[in-house]
Amino acid sequence: MAEDVIVLADGGGGERMMTFVRREILSRFASADPSGALARMADAARVEVDGTALAFTTDSYVVRPLEFPGGDIGRLAISGTVNDLACLGARPIAISLALILEEGLPLATLGRMLDSAAATARSVGAAVVCGDTKVVERGSADQMFLNTAGIGLIAKGRRLGGDRIRPGDKVLVSGTVADHGVAVMSKREGLAFQAAVSSDVAPLWPLAEALLAACPNLRALKDPTRGGLAAAVNELAEAAGVRIRIDEASVPVRPAVAGACDALGLDVLNVANEGKFIVVAAPEEVEAALAAMRGHALGRDAAVIGDVLAPAAVGPRVTLRTTIGGERVLEMPYGEDLPRIC
Amino acid sequence: MAEDVIVLADGGGGERMMTFVRREILSRFASADPSGALARMADAARVEVDGTALAFTTDSYVVRPLEFPGGDIGRLAISGTVNDLACLGARPIAISLALILEEGLPLATLGRMLDSAAATARSVGAAVVCGDTKVVERGSADQMFLNTAGIGLIAKGRRLGGDRIRPGDKVLVSGTVADHGVAVMSKREGLAFQAAVSSDVAPLWPLAEALLAACPNLRALKDPTRGGLAAAVNELAEAAGVRIRIDEASVPVRPAVAGACDALGLDVLNVANEGKFIVVAAPEEVEAALAAMRGHALGRDAAVIGDVLAPAAVGPRVTLRTTIGGERVLEMPYGEDLPRIC
Repeated sequence: MAEDVIVLADGGGGERMMTFVRREILSRFASADPSGALARMADAARVEVDGTALAFTTDSYVVRPLEFPGGDIGRLAISGTVNDLACLGARPIAISLALILEEGLPLATLGRMLDSAAATARSVGAAVVCGDTKVVERGSADQMFLNTAGIGLIAKGRRLGGDRIRPGDKVLVSGTVADHGVAVMSKREGLAFQAAVSSDVAPLWPLAEALLAACPNLRALKDPTRGGLAAAVNELAEAAGVRIRIDEASVPVRPAVAGACDALGLDVLNVANEGKFIVVAAPEEVEAALAAMRGHALGRDAAVIGDVLAPAAVGPRVTLRTTIGGERVLEMPYGEDLPRIC
Repeated sequence: MAEDVIVLADGGGGERMMTFVRREILSRFASADPSGALARMADAARVEVDGTALAFTTDSYVVRPLEFPGGDIGRLAISGTVNDLACLGARPIAISLALILEEGLPLATLGRMLDSAAATARSVGAAVVCGDTKVVERGSADQMFLNTAGIGLIAKGRRLGGDRIRPGDKVLVSGTVADHGVAVMSKREGLAFQAAVSSDVAPLWPLAEALLAACPNLRALKDPTRGGLAAAVNELAEAAGVRIRIDEASVPVRPAVAGACDALGLDVLNVANEGKFIVVAAPEEVEAALAAMRGHALGRDAAVIGDVLAPAAVGPRVTLRTTIGGERVLEMPYGEDLPRIC
């Protein structure tokens, strides 16, 4: 029974994690969530309280190293929660911040991470209203782990999600992919090109707000973190019950990131982003979505990257039209390539 | 500069932690929380959204061992968040559950902890609506850490908190103290009396609901976890700007717990509880509060344990009238006695 223990890929954001989470977690909580929000595994849960539609989400952060080109665990923790809320079209209202600290962690390190978290929260007007601090013995945790949860307010009548996606819709991405994962891996592995690549980690609520204003009928937003673009698009296609075809040549990738992925043996489409949206727009709103993103500093490199197609009885959910003209399955990554990327 | 690192007492729930949290955390987030909720360090933050009063709270759980007489980390994680919400008079609406798992953790262990969490949530009608799973390498965490956050709904017009406490009010406790901390320490240390002591860990919303129905003018509820009754009463006295006198002989303690505390060198008043409230009631509602609690399985041993007194210019905030008739300062514990108790 050598398999009956947790392995790193169980947290990798790919196929292995989906199976693990469904079998070991969701099955147990189905009867503790009559709303079905947990089972949908969206970026955030929609919770109706007294007629008000809220978004609610949580993530823990175990990234290694704590600081990497373009960001750190503090900025990551606030951005991740803001972006998950934004995927439901929700303005961030209140954020919690819980620390698990290893005995011996330098106070100066903690201070830098918290200053970064506070500055990130302030930059999007998200109030950090509650928290918790635990300390464990040396060797019982790796420096520091953070958890944030967040409450967002969804505007009346706004609905975003996989169930709103229709054949004929277009798939967009708000900018270049794989910057975060490559920045962290380059730093961790001490690779020479680390200076050339910077994480995209950023709180995207201002970009989402611009998109929502421009597109009253926006279909869906998705945060392509662990598992990258490939995992996010596969999850959208499955939630929507459609096929999606991505055009490889249209996906924006920085040359330094592409080079680093070659050196590290990674597929850019499987690598985590922390400041990007996958956007699904109705045909009549594609131009407005593109213009709204390109007019914003966080969406300058936005591009249309694919098409939503009618479901098929057999065959893959997501395909990739390659740069050399072929078409192949774009699989959900398995999830073991990039441990502790966020 | 040997002091400039995190020590275990920084998470111990006592004086050291209060100082650490104020200096290293709250100072950084003051400008990221205009509401001041974080700075109040209450069990939960009050958040007004669209005219609806919500409670919001978070806690991480690092208890060792994962299973102890009377409970486990799963029951603890749900109960802790339900109880923090209840301290604002809030019914639990939605809970998040985030896992940090160590590679190699047996799936069977994880399954037992999650079954326990799910059963605890179901028992009080609290829906677990979102979650997260991270896995770290063997040696980078100790088996499993959990985080829960929760959203609660505060009934219209209900206000509980230190600022409502007045001289002349009475202090009550909902039952015996120190059961949780002693159960965990007995198991951890392999002490012979472990079978005799059981943790009180329980989700207290049903007890809070009974209390709120009986006492329209209830002043405050407080969850006496890390730092025990002594820390909770000191925090209440400070928030209220009053003095409190506790009568030692009135504090209910199980004989086995008292004996274990003697053996372990612990003060029962400093030891964590996970299924108790400290209650402050107006004089005219004391009998109703006591009757409401004693009429409930979770409050059978409720007792009046002290008095709220007018503030004094000098002298201690909290005193203890001892069983031998003297009176001494009841200090905020320092916080290093009981690491990883929750």
